[in-house]
Amino acid sequence: MTFFDYQTAPARYRHWRIETDGEVGYLIMDVDQAGGLGDYELKLNSYDLGVDIELNDAVQRLRFEHPEVRCVVIKSGKDNVFCAGANIRYLGQATHGQKVNFCKFTNETRLAIEDASENSKQIYLCAINGNAAGGGYELALAADHIMLVDDRRSSVALPETPLLAVLPGTGGLTRMTDKRKVRRDRADVFCSTEEGVRGARAVDWRLVDEVVPNSKWQDAVSTRAHEIAARSDRPKDAKGIQLTPLDRKIDSDRVSYSHVDVEIDRARGLATVTVRGPSENVPASVEAAHERGAKFWPLTVARELEDAILHLRSNEAEIGVVLLRTDGNAQSVLAHDDFLAKANGDWLMREIRHYLKRVLKRVDVTPKSFIALIEPGSCFAGTLAELAFAADRSLMLIGTREGDNRKAAAITLGQANFGFYPMGNGLTRLQTRFLGEPETLAALKEKTAQPIEGEEAAERGLVTMAYEDFDWDDELRVMLEERLSFSPDAMTGMEANLRFAGPETMETKIFGRLTAWQNWIFQRPNAIGEQGALKLYGSGVSPTFNKERV
Amino acid sequence: MTFFDYQTAPARYRHWRIETDGEVGYLIMDVDQAGGLGDYELKLNSYDLGVDIELNDAVQRLRFEHPEVRCVVIKSGKDNVFCAGANIRYLGQATHGQKVNFCKFTNETRLAIEDASENSKQIYLCAINGNAAGGGYELALAADHIMLVDDRRSSVALPETPLLAVLPGTGGLTRMTDKRKVRRDRADVFCSTEEGVRGARAVDWRLVDEVVPNSKWQDAVSTRAHEIAARSDRPKDAKGIQLTPLDRKIDSDRVSYSHVDVEIDRARGLATVTVRGPSENVPASVEAAHERGAKFWPLTVARELEDAILHLRSNEAEIGVVLLRTDGNAQSVLAHDDFLAKANGDWLMREIRHYLKRVLKRVDVTPKSFIALIEPGSCFAGTLAELAFAADRSLMLIGTREGDNRKAAAITLGQANFGFYPMGNGLTRLQTRFLGEPETLAALKEKTAQPIEGEEAAERGLVTMAYEDFDWDDELRVMLEERLSFSPDAMTGMEANLRFAGPETMETKIFGRLTAWQNWIFQRPNAIGEQGALKLYGSGVSPTFNKERV
Repeated sequence: MTFFDYQTAPARYRHWRIETDGEVGYLIMDVDQAGGLGDYELKLNSYDLGVDIELNDAVQRLRFEHPEVRCVVIKSGKDNVFCAGANIRYLGQATHGQKVNFCKFTNETRLAIEDASENSKQIYLCAINGNAAGGGYELALAADHIMLVDDRRSSVALPETPLLAVLPGTGGLTRMTDKRKVRRDRADVFCSTEEGVRGARAVDWRLVDEVVPNSKWQDAVSTRAHEIAARSDRPKDAKGIQLTPLDRKIDSDRVSYSHVDVEIDRARGLATVTVRGPSENVPASVEAAHERGAKFWPLTVARELEDAILHLRSNEAEIGVVLLRTDGNAQSVLAHDDFLAKANGDWLMREIRHYLKRVLKRVDVTPKSFIALIEPGSCFAGTLAELAFAADRSLMLIGTREGDNRKAAAITLGQANFGFYPMGNGLTRLQTRFLGEPETLAALKEKTAQPIEGEEAAERGLVTMAYEDFDWDDELRVMLEERLSFSPDAMTGMEANLRFAGPETMETKIFGRLTAWQNWIFQRPNAIGEQGALKLYGSGVSPTFNKERV
Repeated sequence: MTFFDYQTAPARYRHWRIETDGEVGYLIMDVDQAGGLGDYELKLNSYDLGVDIELNDAVQRLRFEHPEVRCVVIKSGKDNVFCAGANIRYLGQATHGQKVNFCKFTNETRLAIEDASENSKQIYLCAINGNAAGGGYELALAADHIMLVDDRRSSVALPETPLLAVLPGTGGLTRMTDKRKVRRDRADVFCSTEEGVRGARAVDWRLVDEVVPNSKWQDAVSTRAHEIAARSDRPKDAKGIQLTPLDRKIDSDRVSYSHVDVEIDRARGLATVTVRGPSENVPASVEAAHERGAKFWPLTVARELEDAILHLRSNEAEIGVVLLRTDGNAQSVLAHDDFLAKANGDWLMREIRHYLKRVLKRVDVTPKSFIALIEPGSCFAGTLAELAFAADRSLMLIGTREGDNRKAAAITLGQANFGFYPMGNGLTRLQTRFLGEPETLAALKEKTAQPIEGEEAAERGLVTMAYEDFDWDDELRVMLEERLSFSPDAMTGMEANLRFAGPETMETKIFGRLTAWQNWIFQRPNAIGEQGALKLYGSGVSPTFNKERV
């Protein structure tokens, strides 16, 4: 089986280049045709998961390693083509699970681009110098500002439905209607038109923000990039930190990081993720935190937990249930949270908080059942308590265990739980949890920094169930046996609904409405059957469709 | 092929009874085991499409024929069981398209119950006297108030995921999180527990509003029903109108009603729906409108259009594109709209408006491409103009046709277009259309009651394209050929996304997030394969699941 690794670094990129010129950074897509993960050619700047892993890495590094960059320009390194979207041969040979995982990850990357523009004021401009089709245009849609060269050839297009019988599912349809607010009938025409739209009509239909004649292109892009940079609040003289390689060790049934461990029990379909609290005290100053760089606990834990989650998604598909454990000192986690809050004016501390937010969102859209186990010695405090609130269920031990002289398990709330990490729906996890009981939430705010033990935690609604030691093993065993016996698909569908109570946003619509429809289409013979469009693409044979409308 | 008929009447009901006792109506579910549409027994008050067609009819008739009813109590006519939900044998043998259509219709019926409570103040109470499982509890969730008998047996349950490997997809998951605001981890436990929850825990978890001991049940339900009735603003002395049988004639390739025609071209996969404006002037008074009853044009057209849409969905699945045409006098439509608006204090006029709203919403969730054709002689005015705005695209003829001395085609806006008929997203169709251009919408309001012809309509964004007569036939032909050649699944998915720009509500989440996931699961071998849970249910053989998490 292929092992999918989400760790990379610019020196190893095959498909992207980062170039910086003071306050403007360039993210140049120049896909190595021979560099695909499988047996296909990545022609015309088309991409597979490997290309997007590099893009994700580049977007991260621009934020952490290049704080001086205030505007990022995405452009193509090839002549006459911007990006042809996801590679069709790759999609055609991918399993259903791989397709879904790929789309989820690319969606997260595009949302990370928007998060950079909005929350880090490292604002993205997309300079479309050639055709941008399908996922190529969807990538552009993630930028704050889209420029299209007016050379009578270059166009933007979402040809998925006419060509491939699938949707522009990497946010395309949702960003058209909800971000760019393209009129629905024009969106319908546009998405049915293989060749796309170019020139003035592209602006008129709100598909791009401006078109620029070829002769003025370079100047216009540069001018616009500097204008956008001027809107940024990023510091001019900041020095980046290095995202050094992760401290990671992969064994057959274990992945170990400095502060995260993943244990795999494939026979049962079970994994245990343990996250450890800080091993150092909070830094003496913001400067000291910068010096720690990638070793600063909140950043370390974000990177390690993110890698663990992506690993479980891609490489351990048959793991259905993930137990979430923590270990460490609650006060030290809260002290780090307070440090982040106090230093929020600092660009790096801000980045770290937004990064933790994105990692927790990855948990929210991961198709595994998460069960938090809150036991003596655990450290569900502040940022780490979010793991319990991200879980589908949480079990807490009441009191202590015989022969274990650690203190009784507790949840300790901190300011991180009341606003640091909004979910995709725009609410905190506690707000979402207590949609029907705002008074319970208000009362919890009064308990900040106080350990809340088993019975009280259950009464206050912070955990699903609290058990005494003599019930614990049986309850847990029965629950896991039951959970692992259920249909994995039904669990995925159920969790995708129950996790997102309350408001829907563009982001949750992408993972809810758009993705669920796309996954449905990815199961339909009209797309993936032997006579389906995805299978026959490029063969010269036209697909045969079952005409039934469902 | 079975012909599914959505028309019925109480005298023909096999599964439901309507009883009224002054201000309280009773909707009694007493399913005839032998009355299923197919070869299975409808045990334990389980239901198939036929049962829900009666329920839909009953909900409608209570609104129109029993205006004196201010509270409707849904209860079971059987001992010890409330409702066991959708019949599993029915689901197991239904095609994918039938399953999806069935769920959509039942969802619409449950939303109609909520619409009655909210907008007609004919408020629903569900009195659960026995087990309410799956769709049975989902039906209860549609009520404003849920009572559960506390007899140590009766419970509410959503056992779909553990028993059947599918979701509680008829609004269940969404109403849990968004209407009743059940805490997500409790919802997770509840939906994983075959036997459900009863007694005090059901109240504590917000699953029901009250539990009542068996000995006090009858009195408590009656008392609560009268309390709820007292909150209603319905007139006490109103006299209902009869929903007389539709004037409908079904031929092999045509369905004709008094004001609606459907022509079917099965070879092309194309249908044409023509809706005609009023054939009578507006009534002289509200009393006169009541006397017209079901013959009053707005009500007639709502009933006929609804039946036509449901017919196309159920009986003409291979029709992919529906052309929408209108015929008649624009001023007469606007006069009827104005009449409805002025008489909005009247219960019947209010019912008719809400009914038209629901019929238009049925168009919004119908999986066909709708193309409005706006030509000389057409009548896209006020209420009928909503058809053009509900369409995926609209084509308008500029000027007149040679040899046709009817006036040039025009769209005439009226107050109906600015608030009568909100979509599921809570916005009007014009607000949704012009999300990105509120100024265009504001300018259109100034043009109320003035015919807007082809070129101006295109400029003002009211139609997708406007063509001169000499281009019309070619443009239409090419567009239809293209549309009909696309994958029906891709079109369904695309339309389900493009039609719902802007906010999501509980209603749109049910049709978006929940339904799309359910439809995905309905395609998965873990549910529908030979070893899947839905196939093997009741056989004594356990399903075999592919463990991959997607």
